[in-house]
Amino acid sequence: MDPRISLVTLGVADVDRAVAFYRALGFPVERWGDAAFFELDGAWLSVFPREALAADAGVDPSPARFDGVTLAHNVASPEDVDAVLDELVAAGGDLTQPARETDWGGYSGYVADPDGHLWEVAWNPHADLTSP
Amino acid sequence: MDPRISLVTLGVADVDRAVAFYRALGFPVERWGDAAFFELDGAWLSVFPREALAADAGVDPSPARFDGVTLAHNVASPEDVDAVLDELVAAGGDLTQPARETDWGGYSGYVADPDGHLWEVAWNPHADLTSP
Repeated sequence: MDPRISLVTLGVADVDRAVAFYRALGFPVERWGDAAFFELDGAWLSVFPREALAADAGVDPSPARFDGVTLAHNVASPEDVDAVLDELVAAGGDLTQPARETDWGGYSGYVADPDGHLWEVAWNPHADLTSP
Repeated sequence: MDPRISLVTLGVADVDRAVAFYRALGFPVERWGDAAFFELDGAWLSVFPREALAADAGVDPSPARFDGVTLAHNVASPEDVDAVLDELVAAGGDLTQPARETDWGGYSGYVADPDGHLWEVAWNPHADLTSP
C-alpha cells in the first residue's frame, strides 16, 4: 500500500447544500450522480449522502458506529484492490465491505482501522486518482 | 482558500495502537508529543486522541456531535489563517474555535461545514504543509 490518501469523502444530509458551501470557497466541482467531487491539489474531496456512504461501506449509519467520513486509497487494477485489502486486514483492520464490482463500474471494498475509521480501496476505470 | 486538504486527522482511543496499524502498512511515521503524523504523498495523515481533538476544535466529543475526523488547511501566515476562517464563515460555516495561538507554537482555528465536518485552518511554523 502506497502512503497516500486519494480521496476524502464526507457524508452529508444534503449534497446540494454541501456543494454550495464548497463552491463558495472556490473548490472546483465535478458532479457524478448523487455524489459531488472536488478536484483538489493532492487528495480530492467528495460529498455523498451519509446513509448511502454508510451502506457503501457496509456499516451501521448511526453516529456511534459511523463517523461520516471515509478515506479512499485508489489503485491501478482490481487485483491491487484485493491485495491492498488483504494488507489492511493483515495489519489488524476489519473488513466491513468485501471487494465487489460497484454500480459506478469500478471495484472496491472497505476496511475499518482499529478506531473504526474507514478506508475504501478502489479501482476506478473512469478517473485516475492513483497519484497526487 | 486554495483547493487543498493539507492534513487529515483521525481521533483515536489509543495513539500507539493506531501508529502500529499504520506503520504495519508502511506509512512513514513522525511523532510529536501525543500526536503522530504520517508523511503521505499529497495530504498528510495524523492521529490524535479523540477527546483532545474535539477539545482542540471546540466541539462536544460525543459521536452525535463530533465525527472524530478533522481536515486541515495549512496556510503561510497567521494573517492567512484569519482570512481563510473569514472565508469559511462567509460561505456558511460555523466558527467552533476562534483563531488562537496554539500550545505547539502555531496559530489556528476551526470551522464546521454545514454537516458539522470540521476544517482546521492552521499556520505551522515547524512544518510547511502548504503545498502537496
